[in-house]
Amino acid sequence: MCGIMGIFGNPEASTLTYMGLYAQQHRGQEGAGIVSSNDGSLHRHMGLGLVSDVFHNHDIFNELPGDCAIGHTRYSTTGNDDPKNVGPLMFNIDDSTISIAHNGNLVNIAEIRKELQKNGAIFQTTTDTEIIIHLMAHEEGETVDVRLEKALQKIEGAYSLLVITENELIAARDPHGIRPLCLGKLGETTILASETCALDLLGAYFIRDIEPGEMVIIDKNGLRSKQFTEKKPTKHCIFEYIYFSRPDSKIFGENVDKLRRKFGKVLAEESSIDTADIVISVPDSSNTCALGYSRRSDTKYDIGLIRNHYVGRTFIFPSQKLRDLSVRLKFNTVKGVLNDREVVIVDDSIVRGTTLKKLAKLLRDGGVKKVHVRISSPPVRYPCFYGMDFPTKEELVANGRELEDIKKVIDVDTLQYLSLEGLLRSMSIDGDNFCTACFSGSYPIKIRGQNDKKVFEK
Amino acid sequence: MCGIMGIFGNPEASTLTYMGLYAQQHRGQEGAGIVSSNDGSLHRHMGLGLVSDVFHNHDIFNELPGDCAIGHTRYSTTGNDDPKNVGPLMFNIDDSTISIAHNGNLVNIAEIRKELQKNGAIFQTTTDTEIIIHLMAHEEGETVDVRLEKALQKIEGAYSLLVITENELIAARDPHGIRPLCLGKLGETTILASETCALDLLGAYFIRDIEPGEMVIIDKNGLRSKQFTEKKPTKHCIFEYIYFSRPDSKIFGENVDKLRRKFGKVLAEESSIDTADIVISVPDSSNTCALGYSRRSDTKYDIGLIRNHYVGRTFIFPSQKLRDLSVRLKFNTVKGVLNDREVVIVDDSIVRGTTLKKLAKLLRDGGVKKVHVRISSPPVRYPCFYGMDFPTKEELVANGRELEDIKKVIDVDTLQYLSLEGLLRSMSIDGDNFCTACFSGSYPIKIRGQNDKKVFEK
Amino acid sequence: MCGIMGIFGNPEASTLTYMGLYAQQHRGQEGAGIVSSNDGSLHRHMGLGLVSDVFHNHDIFNELPGDCAIGHTRYSTTGNDDPKNVGPLMFNIDDSTISIAHNGNLVNIAEIRKELQKNGAIFQTTTDTEIIIHLMAHEEGETVDVRLEKALQKIEGAYSLLVITENELIAARDPHGIRPLCLGKLGETTILASETCALDLLGAYFIRDIEPGEMVIIDKNGLRSKQFTEKKPTKHCIFEYIYFSRPDSKIFGENVDKLRRKFGKVLAEESSIDTADIVISVPDSSNTCALGYSRRSDTKYDIGLIRNHYVGRTFIFPSQKLRDLSVRLKFNTVKGVLNDREVVIVDDSIVRGTTLKKLAKLLRDGGVKKVHVRISSPPVRYPCFYGMDFPTKEELVANGRELEDIKKVIDVDTLQYLSLEGLLRSMSIDGDNFCTACFSGSYPIKIRGQNDKKVFEK
Amino acid sequence: MCGIMGIFGNPEASTLTYMGLYAQQHRGQEGAGIVSSNDGSLHRHMGLGLVSDVFHNHDIFNELPGDCAIGHTRYSTTGNDDPKNVGPLMFNIDDSTISIAHNGNLVNIAEIRKELQKNGAIFQTTTDTEIIIHLMAHEEGETVDVRLEKALQKIEGAYSLLVITENELIAARDPHGIRPLCLGKLGETTILASETCALDLLGAYFIRDIEPGEMVIIDKNGLRSKQFTEKKPTKHCIFEYIYFSRPDSKIFGENVDKLRRKFGKVLAEESSIDTADIVISVPDSSNTCALGYSRRSDTKYDIGLIRNHYVGRTFIFPSQKLRDLSVRLKFNTVKGVLNDREVVIVDDSIVRGTTLKKLAKLLRDGGVKKVHVRISSPPVRYPCFYGMDFPTKEELVANGRELEDIKKVIDVDTLQYLSLEGLLRSMSIDGDNFCTACFSGSYPIKIRGQNDKKVFEK
Repeated sequence: MCGIMGIFGNPEASTLTYMGLYAQQHRGQEGAGIVSSNDGSLHRHMGLGLVSDVFHNHDIFNELPGDCAIGHTRYSTTGNDDPKNVGPLMFNIDDSTISIAHNGNLVNIAEIRKELQKNGAIFQTTTDTEIIIHLMAHEEGETVDVRLEKALQKIEGAYSLLVITENELIAARDPHGIRPLCLGKLGETTILASETCALDLLGAYFIRDIEPGEMVIIDKNGLRSKQFTEKKPTKHCIFEYIYFSRPDSKIFGENVDKLRRKFGKVLAEESSIDTADIVISVPDSSNTCALGYSRRSDTKYDIGLIRNHYVGRTFIFPSQKLRDLSVRLKFNTVKGVLNDREVVIVDDSIVRGTTLKKLAKLLRDGGVKKVHVRISSPPVRYPCFYGMDFPTKEELVANGRELEDIKKVIDVDTLQYLSLEGLLRSMSIDGDNFCTACFSGSYPIKIRGQNDKKVFEK
Repeated sequence: MCGIMGIFGNPEASTLTYMGLYAQQHRGQEGAGIVSSNDGSLHRHMGLGLVSDVFHNHDIFNELPGDCAIGHTRYSTTGNDDPKNVGPLMFNIDDSTISIAHNGNLVNIAEIRKELQKNGAIFQTTTDTEIIIHLMAHEEGETVDVRLEKALQKIEGAYSLLVITENELIAARDPHGIRPLCLGKLGETTILASETCALDLLGAYFIRDIEPGEMVIIDKNGLRSKQFTEKKPTKHCIFEYIYFSRPDSKIFGENVDKLRRKFGKVLAEESSIDTADIVISVPDSSNTCALGYSRRSDTKYDIGLIRNHYVGRTFIFPSQKLRDLSVRLKFNTVKGVLNDREVVIVDDSIVRGTTLKKLAKLLRDGGVKKVHVRISSPPVRYPCFYGMDFPTKEELVANGRELEDIKKVIDVDTLQYLSLEGLLRSMSIDGDNFCTACFSGSYPIKIRGQNDKKVFEK
Repeated sequence: MCGIMGIFGNPEASTLTYMGLYAQQHRGQEGAGIVSSNDGSLHRHMGLGLVSDVFHNHDIFNELPGDCAIGHTRYSTTGNDDPKNVGPLMFNIDDSTISIAHNGNLVNIAEIRKELQKNGAIFQTTTDTEIIIHLMAHEEGETVDVRLEKALQKIEGAYSLLVITENELIAARDPHGIRPLCLGKLGETTILASETCALDLLGAYFIRDIEPGEMVIIDKNGLRSKQFTEKKPTKHCIFEYIYFSRPDSKIFGENVDKLRRKFGKVLAEESSIDTADIVISVPDSSNTCALGYSRRSDTKYDIGLIRNHYVGRTFIFPSQKLRDLSVRLKFNTVKGVLNDREVVIVDDSIVRGTTLKKLAKLLRDGGVKKVHVRISSPPVRYPCFYGMDFPTKEELVANGRELEDIKKVIDVDTLQYLSLEGLLRSMSIDGDNFCTACFSGSYPIKIRGQNDKKVFEK
Repeated sequence: MCGIMGIFGNPEASTLTYMGLYAQQHRGQEGAGIVSSNDGSLHRHMGLGLVSDVFHNHDIFNELPGDCAIGHTRYSTTGNDDPKNVGPLMFNIDDSTISIAHNGNLVNIAEIRKELQKNGAIFQTTTDTEIIIHLMAHEEGETVDVRLEKALQKIEGAYSLLVITENELIAARDPHGIRPLCLGKLGETTILASETCALDLLGAYFIRDIEPGEMVIIDKNGLRSKQFTEKKPTKHCIFEYIYFSRPDSKIFGENVDKLRRKFGKVLAEESSIDTADIVISVPDSSNTCALGYSRRSDTKYDIGLIRNHYVGRTFIFPSQKLRDLSVRLKFNTVKGVLNDREVVIVDDSIVRGTTLKKLAKLLRDGGVKKVHVRISSPPVRYPCFYGMDFPTKEELVANGRELEDIKKVIDVDTLQYLSLEGLLRSMSIDGDNFCTACFSGSYPIKIRGQNDKKVFEK
């Protein structure tokens, strides 16, 4: 996962891009970068770390002049912390420079990469973004957008893209519409962002989402749109709602906060528990769900866990004893609230289950009599190939385990998940419009090759 | 304000100190440092920034060996970001090295400093901590604790101190007990910390607070205590409850979370409003208060503001237009919750009033019909000389303004503060035990000199 | 100009490479880098600055394991201090990694670059070295040496190359033999270096020069040699003798020191002056020439200029007054030696003439009665396209100026150059074997395109 | 040893100071710093490394405003690379700031330090410079110069000092005049420097040396001078002539170059050798001596050793084999000059003897038939306590060894030193005016305490 941001038509383009990245920091904390375009040349600043670390003083923006800019926050996926992989990537094609920022994940690209190398292509990074660049370099076409169009027709996967050239800003979204990408306006300035919270920060208006399979080209003559490939069934990533997006964003046409509250309500309808004294959230991601659960189940909402928001990157402690303390670096219990109570704790999802297991122990150490876990999504049983940073199938706690077994692993008194039906029922559009592969194993884009084997070998 | 931490009798003393600083990061984000004692020599690592920045890899702890250590997180006060001022300070007195970590603020020290300089003392930092060191250097005494005792008898102010020597750890607290300092145990390890949340993080037991005017000396023979000065009236800083301490800490014998909830309830009793649709907090500092208010006033609690926790140090934006956006870097509104509602927003205190004024505008821009502000403390009308980082009197919005005027400045529909009587009534011990100078102007330690003039010239 | 170094068959390959770069630091001070090959993978460390800055602690060599390594020191040419341009460059071709270090300059490559880009090649640096890599990537061939051979057949210019792959070390020299490249042995270890002083430093034996148009492949089976292109007329760069190489090196089969002494002698034969009291050198480059001149002309050799060897990179001073002092940063006069004397100052060459003009003024300020300048090479009238960092033709002081005019520009009493005949007569092989284009304008490799115009438009 | 520089009365004081430090870089390469005085406040920039590293861009001088400045280059003595020890040191005394730069070494200061500590002084560095500051802080006196005068009356040793206050520049030199300090003028600007080469660089005039026991105070009213202590026998450091100063400087009234030439001549008179083919120097320190020796002995002067001037700080190589190569990092032989010759090599002094031993081996490896070593100073048999960085007595190769034994240790064919009589005879003033303690053991200032024992226990 990553967050992307683009600005066209504003003398402070790079500063506004920086603010938009700030708003989308939750989409990627490994690194950040901005490329601006000024008078036919592109300028880049990027680095590892948070947006505020990479852009730590305002002088940096003097080096990023021009009224068009794109930015990228990179998510820590494979642990390959190579600064070269931090976007936006910048390349020379023919005699002009272009730069590209990409949120998503391409699939079935091993063959394309091999083919390109056979034809003499020399790769600089290990990102899939670079594949798009090389395809563009090998295509013919008068203009960058035509080359990009041809390149995209050869690839599969999830992608929301921003491309900056010496005089235009191009946006494109994959034909299934898996990742979000929205368009906004602030006076004469055009804005593109992964999430609408970036528009809000700038005081801009939300115009519309970029359509699946749509390419938008913005230059001094205005905005052109074209459908660069035939439309395919819409398959929005449902995890954007469950966990990834900010609650104050509007994603795929819906307020995230409103949906999360509904997930909590349906969860309460499906599996509330009468004997509980209070319901608490795991701050901050499940606050709204817990509030929805509290209302519908008529259980008192309380604050039982305090999160230390200063927890940044910590190193690995050398002894097990110290490592065991590490969940406490992030969370502490409020004993006056928890002691001698039966507690419902609402969380948004379970992936490996390790954090929740530690939290459950923390709650019991804090005096909780019974720990009831309620999850506002179905069990995650399958890996994601479209950009969500899930571990391998084997590491998913729900992989090959029934509810009772999962409960034993994380060691709690009761455990209930929101049903897939309940989840889809909460939406205001038909459930078919969502990719639910991580719950169901039905992948909208078939995965070939090695990945494929891993997925389907069961 | 600062956070301090000390460990005695543990081979991983410096690592445990680091964890304790982590838990107390909210007490100071400007810088952090640790000094350890090993085989008769002291080792120091310190720097500007967050604890996780200063101690960014575990190898650092190899340079901090020994089973005794003290640590310090420094609060950004005067903007004097000189690394020399980051604690713990380290000095040679005679032929031995000592280090000192200090939370609080000395008063009436100008004369002592002048006297010391007249006798040839050369100061290295601009901290008041160094005054204590110089006084120790000029005192005679066989042992460090005797020298420290004599030095402390000459100074006035708020202080919780940790001193580390080549073979002992010493703690001391000012005779009024203004700042917190607690003692804990983890097996054979002795722990000293500003707040109990640091004990919780290590899985340690809270033993007791260090008493006002008490000095505790810990060495390989165990713990000795002495009263280093006659006892004075206890005057705990009431702002530790209102804003500064973590809600999961026990401070001056009370759970902070429990008190804040009570503040919210009394606030509701004093000034709830019937027409409000929902009550929201300014996350995260007033969450508990808002919950208390919600319960007692029977107003629905909701989440109307989303806080971006990645907001670190930002630079000053060069244009007013950009600066105006900066409150949105930190907070965004949840429009589905707020739109067309009458909203009570609970905050813990008002100092300058600038943030609250911006938040109120943000709420109205988010569709709120009426903004009712409720503050869980009385108006802050006087500066603090004992360590709380308030601005000058002239900058306090409540200085010289009646309620109605403040309301106009921050531009809201209604505004009510918790009364001082209501605040003190929430406590389980007598109100005389607290310093309420910032509300009332009655300073328990008289301030002489220039400061004095500013305070009392009215 | 650059210095290159390669080691094969030694467990301390990277450390020996470092020492060889140290010996060749005079060939390039802008940056340095080393790539080592270990168990099928390549490792690189490089940076801007001197060898001792880039490799400032020995731990770096732990990151450069393996018994084969190549290194590169980069000369400050265009001022393009981009660290990406510091060699050795490293690239993936197909699935294997190779690295290349290059001394020299390719010509007529604009078309090749354009052609490669048209076929989709994406360039990462602005170096001509990368052209070779891309040509290799586009060639077919089982082995790296076959690909390299095909690539080299397409390019023209001056080059001495070292290529390291996962299991071999390859050296190649252009068919004219413009730049030096020698082969040495230290026990079982094979060494390749620009200059023999690097062999001396390691206590290694000089075996022979790599032949013009020869490629040498060294792997665990030993050393193979092939002629990769038809032989062309030998054209060694004569400036290696005049200025560039170290005096203790043996270049193109001759001791540099011995030749420089001879240049000085022939210079004395051609233009000694009877009235001179002493002859001095511009330390250190013309020391040996001056000694030769002194012997043959029977003029007393003395030390009249002291060079400050600590002068590293200095910034540009903001005022002219300060800039005028800058020659004194590097040189000071010994007044007792110079005062009231008639002085011959021997220098190796005049390029722009600015330094010599300042030195002449310095000498007169130091009391010199008459300044006689003798230059141990002919006037530099034409730019070099084969790697020597000369400025544009317009900046050459001898361009379009007769002797008398040059004398006026640098403002001295007499000025004489060594004649081209005298220079060539000093050699022990025929003068046809040398490139003398900078003196004569006869370029052994024709320059096409924009450069061509500049050169020949006269 | 260190170099110091002071400027008064020039708007570019700090830049001129930087240039003066550049000229005196040979006096100290460990670190450098400048303090400027502007409108009553002092500004400092300092760091470890060469002057060009510490002041690597011109913006630094914007932070050093004012028309008065002092600078310091620090010599690597004890290996204590603590940046705190790099001068000029800066301290607050009473309410004013002063800064001090010091060349030399105080003796007998252990008692003073102990006494100061007993009275409460807290030391920040391990330099002897700080003693002076503390003495000043403990003295009474209206003005800084009076305090400094009283402080200097309490100390013994070698010192040339520059002190900068908020409105004046003070210089002082110890009563024996052990270290040099000269005064110059450039228009209205007053300059103080260790060596006159710093004046030359600025184009300034040499006025006179500061007298032994003299203090000079420069402020806007001009220059005042006073004798701050009774005059003692003059004892200039003779090693300044032999090795330390630059040949183009005038030190203690004599041109260094002229004296060194004379040392070489007297050396030839005392011990020239008829069978030698050539005489060479160890570049660059003995170039002039070797020239003098060549003239008087009528032996041909030649260049047999090439010095690599790029050798900066190198790390310690991990294996003996690599360490053995390290002399070759610095020097290489010119084989054509040396092969099959009998060679006189002139060096200025022998301290440990390790370098000369390696050079002798290098020469023999280069084909030299016989190695004759001639040293232009007597055997160094005693340590220096006045600032020259000699090792302990035990490490001096001439300590307790007769000539024949030293010859064996360094393993050469013949070895002769210049006699002490010959050395003193070369001077134009009486030999009693020099400290020759390192040759004779007669220390002009008696050394008490631990050092004393080491020196005299024989």
